[in-house]
Amino acid sequence: MTQGLYLEDLAVGQTFRAGPLSVDVEELVRFARDYDPQYFHTDPEAAKSSMFGGLVASGWLTAALTMRMLNEGGAPFAGGVIGAGGEISWLRPVRPGDSLRIESEVLKITPSRSRPDRGSVICKTTTFNQRDEVVQMLTAKLVVFARGGRNAS
Amino acid sequence: MTQGLYLEDLAVGQTFRAGPLSVDVEELVRFARDYDPQYFHTDPEAAKSSMFGGLVASGWLTAALTMRMLNEGGAPFAGGVIGAGGEISWLRPVRPGDSLRIESEVLKITPSRSRPDRGSVICKTTTFNQRDEVVQMLTAKLVVFARGGRNAS
Repeated sequence: MTQGLYLEDLAVGQTFRAGPLSVDVEELVRFARDYDPQYFHTDPEAAKSSMFGGLVASGWLTAALTMRMLNEGGAPFAGGVIGAGGEISWLRPVRPGDSLRIESEVLKITPSRSRPDRGSVICKTTTFNQRDEVVQMLTAKLVVFARGGRNAS
Repeated sequence: MTQGLYLEDLAVGQTFRAGPLSVDVEELVRFARDYDPQYFHTDPEAAKSSMFGGLVASGWLTAALTMRMLNEGGAPFAGGVIGAGGEISWLRPVRPGDSLRIESEVLKITPSRSRPDRGSVICKTTTFNQRDEVVQMLTAKLVVFARGGRNAS
């Protein structure tokens, strides 16, 4: 909590990177069984005849792996990575064995008028595969604390 | 795959419901350890001093549980629930023991001009807790297949 950046440390255009991590087939299938049990996420044989031509990750697993990387340096904020929401798009399938990395860019910083201990930060996080193709875009609205605020210690 | 609705079966304003399911504390912590290891998601004691006043679910777990319910009747489409992306917002914390349900509404239907076997459907999915408070809003762009298309059998 004491390491990491506060609202005052951020500037539009600032970028952060994290990853890579590799997409494990067991994790891909387990996540899908728990949360998105469609055959093109759970059954390697049947998936061959799907529109994806093989097993692909649930988009929500790609989002969750992106969140892991945001926690591992992709959004190094002092109070943590606290999202109010955002826009997400999945541009290419993620397949078992793919290696993902992220780049985050600060797009907008808005100090809160009513709560001086915090502000809102718009952060665009792009998730790439090992061929540098974009697999996911996430533009998120995050809560970031100001130095000396209640949640900033 | 042969049950479920095709593009021609959909109409703007159509609604679907699924759930409830309950948010298990072990699952909440396990998901967070894997994908969002922040103390207010993983440590019940430490979470008490966070801005949330206690343990809360990662927003991505709420999204994943919503996806489970979309697969269980919340978006009963013949080809599955295939998302290109969308807008998500987390409006209230989800806590261990909460019971979640969803309501989905078809907002827009756009047959593809280039690919007559499919179309794009905008679907708004609201996730409620046991007090009928909205915890998440997801407006997703889905691919839905037309009757008789390659992927519709």
